[in-house]
Amino acid sequence: MSGNTFGTLFRITTWGESHGSAVGVVVDGCPAGLSLAAEDIQKELDRRRPGQSRASTKRQEADRVEILSGIFEGKTTGTPISLMVWNKDADSSAYDALRNTPRPGHADYTYQAKYGLRDHRGGGRASARETVGRVAAGAIAKKLLRQEGIEIVGYVAELGGIKADIISSDMSELRSTAESNPVRCPDPAAAEKMLLLLDQVRQEGDSLGGIVVVAAKGVPAGLGEPVFDKLDADLAKALMSLGAVKAVEIGAGLDSARLRGSEMNDPMVIREGKIEFETNNAGGILGGISTGAPIVCKIAVKPTPSIARRQRTVDLVRGEVAEIEIRGRHDPAIPPRIVPVAEAMVALVLADHLLRQRAARF
Amino acid sequence: MSGNTFGTLFRITTWGESHGSAVGVVVDGCPAGLSLAAEDIQKELDRRRPGQSRASTKRQEADRVEILSGIFEGKTTGTPISLMVWNKDADSSAYDALRNTPRPGHADYTYQAKYGLRDHRGGGRASARETVGRVAAGAIAKKLLRQEGIEIVGYVAELGGIKADIISSDMSELRSTAESNPVRCPDPAAAEKMLLLLDQVRQEGDSLGGIVVVAAKGVPAGLGEPVFDKLDADLAKALMSLGAVKAVEIGAGLDSARLRGSEMNDPMVIREGKIEFETNNAGGILGGISTGAPIVCKIAVKPTPSIARRQRTVDLVRGEVAEIEIRGRHDPAIPPRIVPVAEAMVALVLADHLLRQRAARF
Amino acid sequence: MSGNTFGTLFRITTWGESHGSAVGVVVDGCPAGLSLAAEDIQKELDRRRPGQSRASTKRQEADRVEILSGIFEGKTTGTPISLMVWNKDADSSAYDALRNTPRPGHADYTYQAKYGLRDHRGGGRASARETVGRVAAGAIAKKLLRQEGIEIVGYVAELGGIKADIISSDMSELRSTAESNPVRCPDPAAAEKMLLLLDQVRQEGDSLGGIVVVAAKGVPAGLGEPVFDKLDADLAKALMSLGAVKAVEIGAGLDSARLRGSEMNDPMVIREGKIEFETNNAGGILGGISTGAPIVCKIAVKPTPSIARRQRTVDLVRGEVAEIEIRGRHDPAIPPRIVPVAEAMVALVLADHLLRQRAARF
Amino acid sequence: MSGNTFGTLFRITTWGESHGSAVGVVVDGCPAGLSLAAEDIQKELDRRRPGQSRASTKRQEADRVEILSGIFEGKTTGTPISLMVWNKDADSSAYDALRNTPRPGHADYTYQAKYGLRDHRGGGRASARETVGRVAAGAIAKKLLRQEGIEIVGYVAELGGIKADIISSDMSELRSTAESNPVRCPDPAAAEKMLLLLDQVRQEGDSLGGIVVVAAKGVPAGLGEPVFDKLDADLAKALMSLGAVKAVEIGAGLDSARLRGSEMNDPMVIREGKIEFETNNAGGILGGISTGAPIVCKIAVKPTPSIARRQRTVDLVRGEVAEIEIRGRHDPAIPPRIVPVAEAMVALVLADHLLRQRAARF
Repeated sequence: MSGNTFGTLFRITTWGESHGSAVGVVVDGCPAGLSLAAEDIQKELDRRRPGQSRASTKRQEADRVEILSGIFEGKTTGTPISLMVWNKDADSSAYDALRNTPRPGHADYTYQAKYGLRDHRGGGRASARETVGRVAAGAIAKKLLRQEGIEIVGYVAELGGIKADIISSDMSELRSTAESNPVRCPDPAAAEKMLLLLDQVRQEGDSLGGIVVVAAKGVPAGLGEPVFDKLDADLAKALMSLGAVKAVEIGAGLDSARLRGSEMNDPMVIREGKIEFETNNAGGILGGISTGAPIVCKIAVKPTPSIARRQRTVDLVRGEVAEIEIRGRHDPAIPPRIVPVAEAMVALVLADHLLRQRAARF
Repeated sequence: MSGNTFGTLFRITTWGESHGSAVGVVVDGCPAGLSLAAEDIQKELDRRRPGQSRASTKRQEADRVEILSGIFEGKTTGTPISLMVWNKDADSSAYDALRNTPRPGHADYTYQAKYGLRDHRGGGRASARETVGRVAAGAIAKKLLRQEGIEIVGYVAELGGIKADIISSDMSELRSTAESNPVRCPDPAAAEKMLLLLDQVRQEGDSLGGIVVVAAKGVPAGLGEPVFDKLDADLAKALMSLGAVKAVEIGAGLDSARLRGSEMNDPMVIREGKIEFETNNAGGILGGISTGAPIVCKIAVKPTPSIARRQRTVDLVRGEVAEIEIRGRHDPAIPPRIVPVAEAMVALVLADHLLRQRAARF
Repeated sequence: MSGNTFGTLFRITTWGESHGSAVGVVVDGCPAGLSLAAEDIQKELDRRRPGQSRASTKRQEADRVEILSGIFEGKTTGTPISLMVWNKDADSSAYDALRNTPRPGHADYTYQAKYGLRDHRGGGRASARETVGRVAAGAIAKKLLRQEGIEIVGYVAELGGIKADIISSDMSELRSTAESNPVRCPDPAAAEKMLLLLDQVRQEGDSLGGIVVVAAKGVPAGLGEPVFDKLDADLAKALMSLGAVKAVEIGAGLDSARLRGSEMNDPMVIREGKIEFETNNAGGILGGISTGAPIVCKIAVKPTPSIARRQRTVDLVRGEVAEIEIRGRHDPAIPPRIVPVAEAMVALVLADHLLRQRAARF
Repeated sequence: MSGNTFGTLFRITTWGESHGSAVGVVVDGCPAGLSLAAEDIQKELDRRRPGQSRASTKRQEADRVEILSGIFEGKTTGTPISLMVWNKDADSSAYDALRNTPRPGHADYTYQAKYGLRDHRGGGRASARETVGRVAAGAIAKKLLRQEGIEIVGYVAELGGIKADIISSDMSELRSTAESNPVRCPDPAAAEKMLLLLDQVRQEGDSLGGIVVVAAKGVPAGLGEPVFDKLDADLAKALMSLGAVKAVEIGAGLDSARLRGSEMNDPMVIREGKIEFETNNAGGILGGISTGAPIVCKIAVKPTPSIARRQRTVDLVRGEVAEIEIRGRHDPAIPPRIVPVAEAMVALVLADHLLRQRAARF
């Protein structure tokens, strides 16, 4: 129990179900004196919200954030910041059929097994709607980080097997290119192919997975708490805690397994009097502590489990096999929408470790 | 700070440096009444210990565990179990040269950046020697799990690009085959090739990475605490907290990104009155909660950073570029030795969640 | 930072300021399957609400609780329960004068010293209004405990030096007598004297302190986690975390210091085949673990710091001494109103340890 | 479970039983760069050790601390500091008689009730021997605090009803007077009476309780984390976690209940340009945050439960009443020996909050 809190000093607690009254988050530990307005949070929630694009569902979510506490005269006070978004558009009847027949690839069966009962409407707590709280809290973390010179950018690097060709390493350029298309891919040509494939897959009643990259620039050397709360360990937890993520890589990631030591080790150099690394296979982390080089995380996102095709499941009440067809509008691919959520998780980890590092030296 | 404790109810705190007096662990939260002898722990430490094989270093480590507390008349008492292994064979002079020149791919530079000073001898706290505590604590977790019908097995699935052909899914068979060769690979033919490659790479003064699989069978459905302490999130953190790990996958892992929803979703069936899954792309976890199917984790292990070749680094005192050659005996590949460590981490997560699940229902 | 979360398995996070939009709490870790309605919570909030009695302020607080998540079809689901109460009647102008002149006995100065800024309106986060979240969460804990046969009762044992003569040890009788008068004293004669003294003190522009007892019956032997999370240690923290509390006693408490060992030790007996204690100087706790006898806590509550008299303070901006007179209606004594809050804190500790105890044995 | 860790950033984990091999503590989160030698710790352990005085038992404890990790070239490295003291002089046979007959006033019965089994030898984990780890860790906290200008002093203010007349408020004078007599009382006349009473009570086979004061000077305003981790809340927990403590008071403590608001509130003044308080009824804490005035805690210590007189208990195996006589040498009063332990707990809380405060402001 009590798995709904994340972080040590910069700490968030999220709550809310897909078809409950509201979803929200309490941010505890944000330092006092940070300028913060609802707009700072709203713009990240807007990035998370499904648009009208081919890449995302058509369900309307207004999602206006309300700041209920913790801000006074435009600044954080050091007390908990409570953020809430009311739920709307919640017709639960579409889910009646799923009450006893868990959807394959979903958490329906496991919630039932764990708790003995569940709110089956819209996936309940296991719905992607839960990420509203993460993104809202992440917006505060991002603001904090930005003032310390840390920028975070996320994008889709691969979708349905179509790989983006990433030529730039300039973060604002990556961001603006990625945000300019509905699949959030910084390679416009690949983005077009991805959109065509998405259309096709949607018509087939199927879905696609993909790869998302999140990078952070400007992170000072020294963040991360060995031996268990290493920066990469906390990032892995943060990102793997997203429902659709099945793999987390740092730096060279899986490729590390195929490199020789002489290729993998990043040689150190001095540039303009500053220690730097010639390459960044480490992904900005050595021994669980940031090196000062960009932090680079990659996640594998599974295809949307809610597909229109008939699937085999079991009837939990009758104890026999059954079939279901999932109706309603579902994104045929999660990667484009998970980008702001994954960025939020990275921001939360970095903000927490930035504060933790303040206690590292006498 | 304070990153040396792991777990919520079954909780460990490790301590010790490579060239300090000893290394150890305090296990807090092990339920009372578990039969436990030093031999239960010793046999796992022996698996961790470098052997005489071609796959591992020749440094001798006796590593006899001492149980200092928490056991009375052969049973755990519910109080903290303190385990210690004295350090031996610690000639630190070989490390003098590294005091000011951080080794590429190592934590030397980042510890210095974080703390302002460091114990440079043998990697200090960042040494693989730190894992003695993890393995010792993991042995207790394994014993607990075994009595609940949960078995864990780990093996090398790939080394230096050579892939094992895994034909069996029988865990005791996998284990006995893997443990019968020095690279811990359950495919004897691949194991032979790996050993040849290791010899060659060692002669070249270089090193290899690889892929390790850890699986757990018998895990009941219901373990894991959404939304942040999901079972896969905690496994990802546990495994990524190992120094050489650069990627963690659950179930289909990275491949999920390339599957369609219709391929990825594991259909549910009823076998002998029990709900099961036809496939296990989920790796035994849905929505962060165990499904009852085997938990399958895969980690990418980077090549040993300590290589005999000359490497570029910087001199921290002089503030100029430098070169180093690392002497001493180092494993040319970490995967074979990381197997028992990774198993231990998985065991610790499962034991913790097994206890946490006791509070899930009224 | 991050001091707004309490508990390990049954865990609450409160938020909100006196003059913000709302106050609330997120309860994480309540087991699934507990029947819970808004009315269960509302009745405790009503007990906390200031009435029309002579013992309490006349400020009107409607305080209707809203359950925003975590309940489905009348039962807890195991997911976070978010509770909120909107703030009303918040005219902040009365506090303008206090912006730079901290009120003696209040947290005004210390919040300013800690955070560098503060929400001065109505005491901000340090207001007694913050306890709404504690009481709401405590109501859930009480419901859980009641189903396990545990009852909690609190009452005023002393006010302004007037001591109650407690003759009954029957908890429902204690409760009904205490709740029948505005000072919540189970001795009706003493209650009358207390009320007269309150009237007099109010007219003098002054305030009174007192002693509150909280007892829990039906607590099984075995709760509490040595050596730091002892049951009495956690109770002491829980109760001392209430702003007005300056002392916490368990069992014989302060009197223990004046007893001989032969008087203090509670002899053990067997009654109807059950182990019991002849006396209860231990207050139901030995070695930090419950004995099965009633848990008895006593708290010393300081007099309300907001008094009508002129007081000496300093002007933080001008850096010179100043005088203030605090206007507005304030309870001349906190003990009657703190009763349900203190009960809530005891309930939260017991619910948490009840769940923690489930992991104690193999 | 897992109650053996204390603190958030400056965090300790203690382990060990009275008659086990050793007792110890792991200190995690001590900032890097603090000068630390075994002698810093040893001198506090020596203060804890029972002497030859009339106030304490005659059992010999050599108690040489060993630093096993976390120090390099005389400075802390930021990694866990493992401290250990071997147990000696552990003849367990004297305890055989107590295996099934719990000692009144001891944790024997409750450990059995909690865990289903217990190490009965010498009180096992519930022995005062457990405090070795606290004192050792507290010595490090004290060193850290001293460098920040914070001094802690503890003394016996009352023993067996004999009250000390404390005339000085100078901390080094208080300390040197208190340490000059075996009861650690800063009033030499009272100390003499206490020693006489102790002799008499020992001859009667009985024991005495008392009051201990611990004060901290130089604590900056701003420490403490509302609303649950308030400084006084954490102090209350820390002190109540000591086995013999039955009450904790802050500042005016219990007396607050009998003061009027006009007497209790500490008026603020400006002295030499600094904000101060004319009185210190608050005990240096308002709203859970330090005011800058001395922190003053008072604890009520119960009489030693191990008395030579015949006492009534039960036989857990036979399920019938029984009588026991406790043999061996036991301190007839705990207060003198608890002084360094209580100081250590206060130091640990302050060191933790000093580090936590570093994250309070942007």
